[in-house]
Amino acid sequence: KMLQRVLCTVLFMGALPSLAEVSQGHISVVLLGATGDLAKKYLWQGLFQLYMDQVSSGHSFTFHGAALTALEPGQRLMFDVLKKLACPPDVSPNRCAVLKDQFLKLSQYHQLKTAENYTVLNREIETLLRQEGLKEAGRIFYFSVPPFAYTEIARHINSSCRPPPGAWLRVVLEKPFGHDLESAQQLAAELISFFKEEEMYRVDHYLGKQAIAHILPFRDQNRHFLDPIWNRHHVERVEIVLKETVDAKGRTSFYEQYGVIRDVLQNHLTEALMFLTMELPANMSRAEEVLQSKLQAFQSLRGLEKNSAVLGQYQAYASQVQEELQKAQDYISTTPTFAGVLIHSDSLRWEGVPFLLTSGKALDERVGYVRVLFKNRAYCTQSETLRDAQHSQCKAKQIIFYIGHGALNTPAVLVSRNLFRPVMPEGSWREAVGRSDLHIFGQPLSDYYVYSPVKERDAYSVLISNIYHARKDFFITTENLLASWGFWTPLLDSISHQPLRLYPGGVENQHLLDFEMVSGEVAFTLAEPVELLNPNRLMPSDYRTIQSKFRQSPLVSAWSEELISQLASDIEKTASRTVAQSGQFHLALSGGSSPVVLFQRLARHHYAFPWKHTHIWLVDERCVPLTDTESNFFSLHSHLLQNVRVPYFNVHPMPVHLNQRLCVEEDGGTEMYAKEIMALVANASFDLVLLGVGTDGHTASLFPRSENGLEGAQTVVLTESPVKPHQRMSLSLPLINKARQVFVLVLGKGKHDITTLLSRVGHEPRKWPISGVSPSSGQLVWYVDYEALLG
Amino acid sequence: KMLQRVLCTVLFMGALPSLAEVSQGHISVVLLGATGDLAKKYLWQGLFQLYMDQVSSGHSFTFHGAALTALEPGQRLMFDVLKKLACPPDVSPNRCAVLKDQFLKLSQYHQLKTAENYTVLNREIETLLRQEGLKEAGRIFYFSVPPFAYTEIARHINSSCRPPPGAWLRVVLEKPFGHDLESAQQLAAELISFFKEEEMYRVDHYLGKQAIAHILPFRDQNRHFLDPIWNRHHVERVEIVLKETVDAKGRTSFYEQYGVIRDVLQNHLTEALMFLTMELPANMSRAEEVLQSKLQAFQSLRGLEKNSAVLGQYQAYASQVQEELQKAQDYISTTPTFAGVLIHSDSLRWEGVPFLLTSGKALDERVGYVRVLFKNRAYCTQSETLRDAQHSQCKAKQIIFYIGHGALNTPAVLVSRNLFRPVMPEGSWREAVGRSDLHIFGQPLSDYYVYSPVKERDAYSVLISNIYHARKDFFITTENLLASWGFWTPLLDSISHQPLRLYPGGVENQHLLDFEMVSGEVAFTLAEPVELLNPNRLMPSDYRTIQSKFRQSPLVSAWSEELISQLASDIEKTASRTVAQSGQFHLALSGGSSPVVLFQRLARHHYAFPWKHTHIWLVDERCVPLTDTESNFFSLHSHLLQNVRVPYFNVHPMPVHLNQRLCVEEDGGTEMYAKEIMALVANASFDLVLLGVGTDGHTASLFPRSENGLEGAQTVVLTESPVKPHQRMSLSLPLINKARQVFVLVLGKGKHDITTLLSRVGHEPRKWPISGVSPSSGQLVWYVDYEALLG
Repeated sequence: KMLQRVLCTVLFMGALPSLAEVSQGHISVVLLGATGDLAKKYLWQGLFQLYMDQVSSGHSFTFHGAALTALEPGQRLMFDVLKKLACPPDVSPNRCAVLKDQFLKLSQYHQLKTAENYTVLNREIETLLRQEGLKEAGRIFYFSVPPFAYTEIARHINSSCRPPPGAWLRVVLEKPFGHDLESAQQLAAELISFFKEEEMYRVDHYLGKQAIAHILPFRDQNRHFLDPIWNRHHVERVEIVLKETVDAKGRTSFYEQYGVIRDVLQNHLTEALMFLTMELPANMSRAEEVLQSKLQAFQSLRGLEKNSAVLGQYQAYASQVQEELQKAQDYISTTPTFAGVLIHSDSLRWEGVPFLLTSGKALDERVGYVRVLFKNRAYCTQSETLRDAQHSQCKAKQIIFYIGHGALNTPAVLVSRNLFRPVMPEGSWREAVGRSDLHIFGQPLSDYYVYSPVKERDAYSVLISNIYHARKDFFITTENLLASWGFWTPLLDSISHQPLRLYPGGVENQHLLDFEMVSGEVAFTLAEPVELLNPNRLMPSDYRTIQSKFRQSPLVSAWSEELISQLASDIEKTASRTVAQSGQFHLALSGGSSPVVLFQRLARHHYAFPWKHTHIWLVDERCVPLTDTESNFFSLHSHLLQNVRVPYFNVHPMPVHLNQRLCVEEDGGTEMYAKEIMALVANASFDLVLLGVGTDGHTASLFPRSENGLEGAQTVVLTESPVKPHQRMSLSLPLINKARQVFVLVLGKGKHDITTLLSRVGHEPRKWPISGVSPSSGQLVWYVDYEALLG
Repeated sequence: KMLQRVLCTVLFMGALPSLAEVSQGHISVVLLGATGDLAKKYLWQGLFQLYMDQVSSGHSFTFHGAALTALEPGQRLMFDVLKKLACPPDVSPNRCAVLKDQFLKLSQYHQLKTAENYTVLNREIETLLRQEGLKEAGRIFYFSVPPFAYTEIARHINSSCRPPPGAWLRVVLEKPFGHDLESAQQLAAELISFFKEEEMYRVDHYLGKQAIAHILPFRDQNRHFLDPIWNRHHVERVEIVLKETVDAKGRTSFYEQYGVIRDVLQNHLTEALMFLTMELPANMSRAEEVLQSKLQAFQSLRGLEKNSAVLGQYQAYASQVQEELQKAQDYISTTPTFAGVLIHSDSLRWEGVPFLLTSGKALDERVGYVRVLFKNRAYCTQSETLRDAQHSQCKAKQIIFYIGHGALNTPAVLVSRNLFRPVMPEGSWREAVGRSDLHIFGQPLSDYYVYSPVKERDAYSVLISNIYHARKDFFITTENLLASWGFWTPLLDSISHQPLRLYPGGVENQHLLDFEMVSGEVAFTLAEPVELLNPNRLMPSDYRTIQSKFRQSPLVSAWSEELISQLASDIEKTASRTVAQSGQFHLALSGGSSPVVLFQRLARHHYAFPWKHTHIWLVDERCVPLTDTESNFFSLHSHLLQNVRVPYFNVHPMPVHLNQRLCVEEDGGTEMYAKEIMALVANASFDLVLLGVGTDGHTASLFPRSENGLEGAQTVVLTESPVKPHQRMSLSLPLINKARQVFVLVLGKGKHDITTLLSRVGHEPRKWPISGVSPSSGQLVWYVDYEALLG
């Protein structure tokens, strides 16, 4: 009844839109969690801003605050918040008073607890609209509630509060959207059972930060300048940084579950990264194209590994957790409060450019920025001291999207003057007059064109306006969310027991958190100080690589990562020595999953490898087309060949696919491969053969009791695997045993049983083909990781 | 007679080596051009230094100055020079006086003009040795004479002055060693008819500069530190710079013929470049290995193009030339006095690292240095203002070999303190205490470890000592010389009519000579000022690309370089459009020389090309193994495939080599290729076919009156070429005409006649196969350069 009266009053006041305009329809906004912190701080103000902006749009509005609190106290709490709403400085005090009064009258509190409550709310909205003869445009439900409450609320809305056909529903969701890929998928699956994808607006409030929100428009409006330089040839590095001075005190119950990567990097900084790396669609006004392009950019990201990140924790965190969560004195938290992560995109545009994402609590300053540093392409002939410094092309070239705080203390876009004068939208950004003494990233402010927003707008105002305008590209779609979790989850999993560097907090941190890129990984610059979290945990360096004997042959053993790195070095050494001696190196590689890590290591860390003189052969192949993802060659190609420069002529895939059919004996594939080996490899003696071992003791594609390949004169054979795809092509045991070196790689707990067995049995190739590997005049070395060796 | 007496006197003086030691043998040094400028300034002093250093070595010496001047005046001139010889500060005045006196007594002047003169000299040396009972160790002939005199002197030495068997001959040659590859080859061929390679010591006096001479020892002694960082992953750029303040006044008769590239870059700076880029042999003491490694480094250099260099000329040069060479007022010199050149090495170690070689006269300062700037791999978490600056990893990291002059005014080796403390040979280099106010390359001197030589030694002293020690790695071997000319000559040829930027000289130059790297090329940073040399010369931009019709199809015409760049862009556009439409792009490429430039352009300038989705087919192939340099595929591989990332599966060489034999019909290569096309290319309709035209009107490998391929159902055919190798495989005309686009590229004067002919004839494929190219539903475009079009 009250709502009805208010709306009537409002509708007949002169300041309001005429009825003709109102015919655009009515919008009901329901704010769930209307008395919570976020609502108090930002959301009501954002809704009021929406009302001010759109009061003449032809839409009419009502605002429904909702919470679990009973009506009376809830009303009181909510109107205490509403009373404090403010107008921007450009609105006159009189007009502000009128607008605020209207807004208060259009706002109402509801207790939303039971299914009944939702039905009532729905009925009230319907009744009002009928009584006023208003068409319904749509309903916005803003979830400012903890995620555990999502499902139930969603169910109620879906079953009782959907607007009638022709009107839209928009539900706005606040993070966290899960904790890792699995939980995010689960939450997404639940939500999608209630709402259509286009109905959901997942908020990442960074997308409402003016500097971040302007990245894409900036790229679009400055295409002319950026097209030639926005790529790996010109960009030296990109830094995406959010530093905080505050710590997690008082919030550890949340923080301890999430940590800095889930809290800041997975969402805010990743979104900024996407805005920088994605290809610009021709038409930026099509949200769908923007979103598609962003998803493609996710696909180009190179997977993160444990050493893609450096992690820290401020010293006081442990005691804060112990106190706030009532943990024991010896409780150790492994939650990082600082992270520096190195990300690479494998797109042609960005290949090789380091993107550094950094965030932390208890740092020296509060600041957020996205900084694109360009390579110095100039040579200045005149000596520095004799140079007119103003126009020098030898100065640093940068583009900075300054999110806020820090030395500038305002959102801003900065472009080095020796780059170009950017095109900026006149209405919303203006050139700023900088303080001349200020230095930003090593250069005086006068070296930049500096733009700041004409009106500073809070992120939530920006986002609420975008919800109203249905600009879905300002929000996180399900696909986007899952892509991001898919990208971050492997890192989160691999670092869960990673040691953290302790830091004192504030200015005291000094160089303790500086880190460096080394061969595609990152590491703290300063050597590990004495204080280390998890002091009892053994460090990798505590486990030296073990060198001993296995089956009368040399054995190298270590944790898998170190083992792979040792193996890769040993292969490179063999390759270099062999090329120096004979001018070429014939390397036969096995398929399977273990070598993949080796291939990646070789591709990324061994740039001095003599690829140009290396011939690559296959030890075995599955009878599928080479372009099939199941193909051993395909895996070898994706993980190694695609990234190094082996001459085309030196690559020898097995001819499993001839005359448009697979491994048909009459097609003579095995003879063809045997001839190729004879023609190119001296004495058909490979310089190095890399083998694996199956749990059944098979090696290459030579399975127990195989009819072919375990003995006899045939060098290349067709075999049958007990698992799919059954048909295989393989080098024979006699051929393998002609090699100058054979390395056998065995990784993982799953191989412990066969490893133990092999340590006891003799030469029984028919039972365990691997036991028949015994180079007649070459050397055999076993590379077995601790898990396979020790279980 | 005089020599004899002097030697006797000397040999019996106490200060000299005993006869037992003298038994190492006698060395005769003959300095040709003994009264010339170089001899006066450096060579006699260098010989005196050799004498001082080696007086106790067990060798005895005599020094023979020689020139064309008659005996009396020659003697006077020479001894005027010798009187001024000085000892280094560490030799006591007494000892200096004794040594100098001895040296003067061991030195003698000869007129060497006629064959007779040489015979006499030889006889004198023989007589002396016989009389003194000395064994002859060897003879050094130092050519300090103009190069036109080389051949005659060489002939005389070879025929009359060779030492007896068992003693060595060393002839020392001063540059210039030719003017380009051809003249250098000619000179080298003449010299090699008189001297063995090991007898010749070609001087590049930069190799005697202490900082340059220490590059290799530094790399060797600091392998431990440098191994991980001396590569493209860590080095951002290298600058090799020799700046002079003087101009060419008084030397224009020499300079006008040579210019800055021949004078400084081809020799001095290139040698420094080689010391930086070459792989270090395991054993640095083996001169032969060092030289081999240097030659290999030459082979990795990427060929220079016109736009690899920026060129300038100081304003006063023209009038200096006019005056000194008595040229007309309107004489225009095209000799550059300033050059900045961008060099790339395609070795795995250096791929992508820019090496900038710069030198010029009339610049703002005199300085020479080799500067290796490392990438900044660090992220400093603490804000700059709150950071302890001393140990920051975020500061620049550099290694500088400071040749001399400039702010430091001494040879030096500088290593940034945040890199490593270098190992330096204690006896010869010491840590220098720098002036604290000095800034070197943007950083205070205190940021570096600075080392300077214990004794500053003149380059010629160093070199003469190395001649004595037969260290050939300090000299330019014939192979090395020709490799260097081979590298520079194409640039010299292509820039001979290049416009030069005029510069005022000195500090006035300001930013006029700054240049920038753009897509692998260099260009002056400031737009071309109004003053331009050769104002009447048409600029490339004056010739717009012509678009018109040829044989009823679109014609694009321009100078060849622009035409290629247009064609490359058009291909990229077609590729991107096609991939966007159908997900893949099938490109069939022709062999021959014209496409090579195109391949290079595509590889170097079109990084956005969708290679990953491109299939590469061959239009035709010669029946040779794919690894034969004659093979079309081999050329395609070297110039394109090696440098881009086309998946292995998408590369389709023609199967000309099956069953270890070439193009045998029964092997079914043509059917195999036809099937592959059918299987992968929709409707066997290539997206783009690139063709060329032969002077006989052939295209692909379809020759006039060919029995196969001009018509009929066969899509891939074997044909016969009138030139070797005769056997070919080719796509047929009907298959080509199924393509969606066909581009025909015609380049060069040699194609003018056939172009003219083709503009007149109709469809006569049996006479001129190219006239049969007429895509049934596709588009044909002609790319014909001005030379082919206009003759």
